[in-house]
Amino acid sequence: MQKIIQCVPNFSEGRDKKKVEKIIDCFRNAEGVKLLDYSLDADHNRTVVTIVGDAESLKKAVLSAVEVALKIIDLTKHEGQHPRMGACDVVPFIPIKNVTEEEVIALSKEVGEEIGKLGIPVFLYEKSATASHRENLADVRRGQFEGLEEKMKDAKWNADFGTKDAPHKTFGAVAVCCRMPLVAFNVNLGTDNLDIATAIGKKVRFLGGGLRYCKAMGVDLAERKITQVSMNLTDHTKTTIYSVIELVRIEAKRYGVPIVGSEVIGLVPMQALVDCAEYYLQIENFSIDQVLEYKIME
Amino acid sequence: MQKIIQCVPNFSEGRDKKKVEKIIDCFRNAEGVKLLDYSLDADHNRTVVTIVGDAESLKKAVLSAVEVALKIIDLTKHEGQHPRMGACDVVPFIPIKNVTEEEVIALSKEVGEEIGKLGIPVFLYEKSATASHRENLADVRRGQFEGLEEKMKDAKWNADFGTKDAPHKTFGAVAVCCRMPLVAFNVNLGTDNLDIATAIGKKVRFLGGGLRYCKAMGVDLAERKITQVSMNLTDHTKTTIYSVIELVRIEAKRYGVPIVGSEVIGLVPMQALVDCAEYYLQIENFSIDQVLEYKIME
Repeated sequence: MQKIIQCVPNFSEGRDKKKVEKIIDCFRNAEGVKLLDYSLDADHNRTVVTIVGDAESLKKAVLSAVEVALKIIDLTKHEGQHPRMGACDVVPFIPIKNVTEEEVIALSKEVGEEIGKLGIPVFLYEKSATASHRENLADVRRGQFEGLEEKMKDAKWNADFGTKDAPHKTFGAVAVCCRMPLVAFNVNLGTDNLDIATAIGKKVRFLGGGLRYCKAMGVDLAERKITQVSMNLTDHTKTTIYSVIELVRIEAKRYGVPIVGSEVIGLVPMQALVDCAEYYLQIENFSIDQVLEYKIME
Repeated sequence: MQKIIQCVPNFSEGRDKKKVEKIIDCFRNAEGVKLLDYSLDADHNRTVVTIVGDAESLKKAVLSAVEVALKIIDLTKHEGQHPRMGACDVVPFIPIKNVTEEEVIALSKEVGEEIGKLGIPVFLYEKSATASHRENLADVRRGQFEGLEEKMKDAKWNADFGTKDAPHKTFGAVAVCCRMPLVAFNVNLGTDNLDIATAIGKKVRFLGGGLRYCKAMGVDLAERKITQVSMNLTDHTKTTIYSVIELVRIEAKRYGVPIVGSEVIGLVPMQALVDCAEYYLQIENFSIDQVLEYKIME
């Protein structure tokens, strides 16, 4: 059975296409690696790459891309709206098929160790984190590249691999992890009252006492004269799409507001949709191996 | 983009494993062909094979398997509970990915023509049928192997390829087609009254004025003390799983009977489940290309 892991490395260059292409070439021509997508964002000055492959192939390709980033990206000259601390900023690995969380955590640590050998400090986060205060990427990255030198003097923020107590002069540092696939799911409400969408968002999200792997906020869709509860599900296997939309429905009832639609942004794992079909159709004893295309991939 | 076609050839041998293995070898070792499943049924004396691949690879593999069946299966000595008219009895091709119905109809006709050159009469059925009275497999196969000689004398039942007016002495004839994937979907009812399940089945199926691509019947699940509306959806892209279960729910209301579960038997195309997730979650503008695993298959 083929093991499939996804990797979504982010690079701090979203304006100079030539530089970005040099990085992308590391994935485009890599055996055992499939380049699914990459997109440059000039405002963020950042490129997000999506690749899939087996552990060894991904490891090789990511390492070569990090080496290229080390050569061609200088964070001392980098400006952009997105928070960042490294030339290659984050390298999350995501288990997709026939692979356990443990295997992907191991892979993230191996890759981290190898990057460390290049003299680049590496922080493990999310499921790979070595301490609970290092799980959240926002915490790890707080202070960004400019604040890293000061931050890393604190033993609490020593790197896991590479130089422990100081950033690389031009590269900065990189955060590497195993995490679950992120599902971006938005529910549209039949009201133009943003307060309602915001209030519902606060109720359903983890921070407000809601579902554990749900982040949510209210958004105004002014053109359509409706509002939206915009959500990120950080572990759809535990906080499912159907539980999220049904909880939004329950909260919306308080205001007499109907759900008028929803949207899935970007890629979504098949299991997340299969779980919904299973729930609403009340299917008993279903396995994803019964999905023809999934079976074909074996 | 890789074109994927499924083929589910049925062979009239389900007892002699050695013979079946000779047939399966044609698929197992075929380049461009993936053997997903095969199962021997001794009562039916029949083997059902499931393969996927591109048009050319499937064509080659199916032809070699038909040649083997021609050599080793003698229908004059065949007994079994399942209706059959040929050593290789049916060869349905099913469009799965990046391939149109028209392309698969063309493939079925090419394969039919090649089989005809072996002196085997070929009947095109379902979407490949050359006349409306030849669409339904049950009609094409009525009379079975034993009645074929008489039946084929009637111009209405002349073969499309191969010997027009008489079966092959030992092989009989084969039916080849393009059809949509079959979805076997059963809905369990919270009643042990089979009359209710039967009545609902009659209401939702095409024959009774129900949904066009739905076949249905009531079934007693005596052990669980419940009943079931057992259905086959012959074109899930037009008669969807959610429309079928919601129609069963509406009919069941008349008897105050709840739906207590459902089941999907065997393989189901991803789109059929995605359609259900889209419906119940009210997702706007979703494309199956957003399913990660589907994207990986590109």
